[in-house]
Amino acid sequence: MIRVLGIDPGINITGYGVLDHDGSDQSVVTFGTIMPPRKKSNPARLAHLYEEIVNLIREFSPTEIAVEEAFFSKNARTAFVLGQARGMALLAAARHELDCYEYAPKKVKLSVVGNGSASKEQVQYMVKSILSLKQLSEKFDVTDALAVALCHINQLRSPVK
Amino acid sequence: MIRVLGIDPGINITGYGVLDHDGSDQSVVTFGTIMPPRKKSNPARLAHLYEEIVNLIREFSPTEIAVEEAFFSKNARTAFVLGQARGMALLAAARHELDCYEYAPKKVKLSVVGNGSASKEQVQYMVKSILSLKQLSEKFDVTDALAVALCHINQLRSPVK
Repeated sequence: MIRVLGIDPGINITGYGVLDHDGSDQSVVTFGTIMPPRKKSNPARLAHLYEEIVNLIREFSPTEIAVEEAFFSKNARTAFVLGQARGMALLAAARHELDCYEYAPKKVKLSVVGNGSASKEQVQYMVKSILSLKQLSEKFDVTDALAVALCHINQLRSPVK
Repeated sequence: MIRVLGIDPGINITGYGVLDHDGSDQSVVTFGTIMPPRKKSNPARLAHLYEEIVNLIREFSPTEIAVEEAFFSKNARTAFVLGQARGMALLAAARHELDCYEYAPKKVKLSVVGNGSASKEQVQYMVKSILSLKQLSEKFDVTDALAVALCHINQLRSPVK
């Protein structure tokens, strides 16, 4: 059995979701968001994010981590801020000797919705449907994190690319 | 007395320099580079960088940290990679409760050379001259790191912006 921690990183809000996969089926372990206090300094917010990700690793003991690749189409300022936040997820993975997989947004959408340019709403709908979640936070950060975890599981199922 | 750790972050090469300042004069404590092995994975390289910065903090006990702000004129991909590396410096500062100051490259050049659009060679020349360094690594990463530390000290000297 594998346990995937999916992360959709951001400095204001990071979504996460943990899924178990037994080789044929998957089940939801937990999901939620990390929101570093806006009044704190940038370094303190990054530390908050890092420590919360470490807490998730300690509490749920994932066997691997899946993270969305950045949207490189965004501007340099956005990419820079996103890079800082995403670095926290990669560092937490490396320091806990967890393999970390990266998936482009298009790949995640293709894997979960069957359409590489699906909207966030479509991703959310499919994530809720696949995981039989009736009441899921309306936050796209959470569904995006679950989607990247699902995408990773789908990759394992179909090793031929 | 304050002890400033200046950092010029990068995933291939991060320059650092530690300066003491007694209120009137400054002296060099150490300087060098951190080069995460290229064959390692991105998360492992970030962890290498983070751990080396933490080692510097433990060994030299700086009282504050100064970091160059990114070059936002670069493209999004570059900014993203730089953001990840820079996040390691900010996280290390926050987790050791050190104040972290950020200076734009233009500000650093203006402070050290007196010209906001000075070349790296000019910055290197002035850093060597101000700090009376005869033999300094030719790496611009090191002189840029010492320059941002000097810039921070100059700010303390002249509190009026």
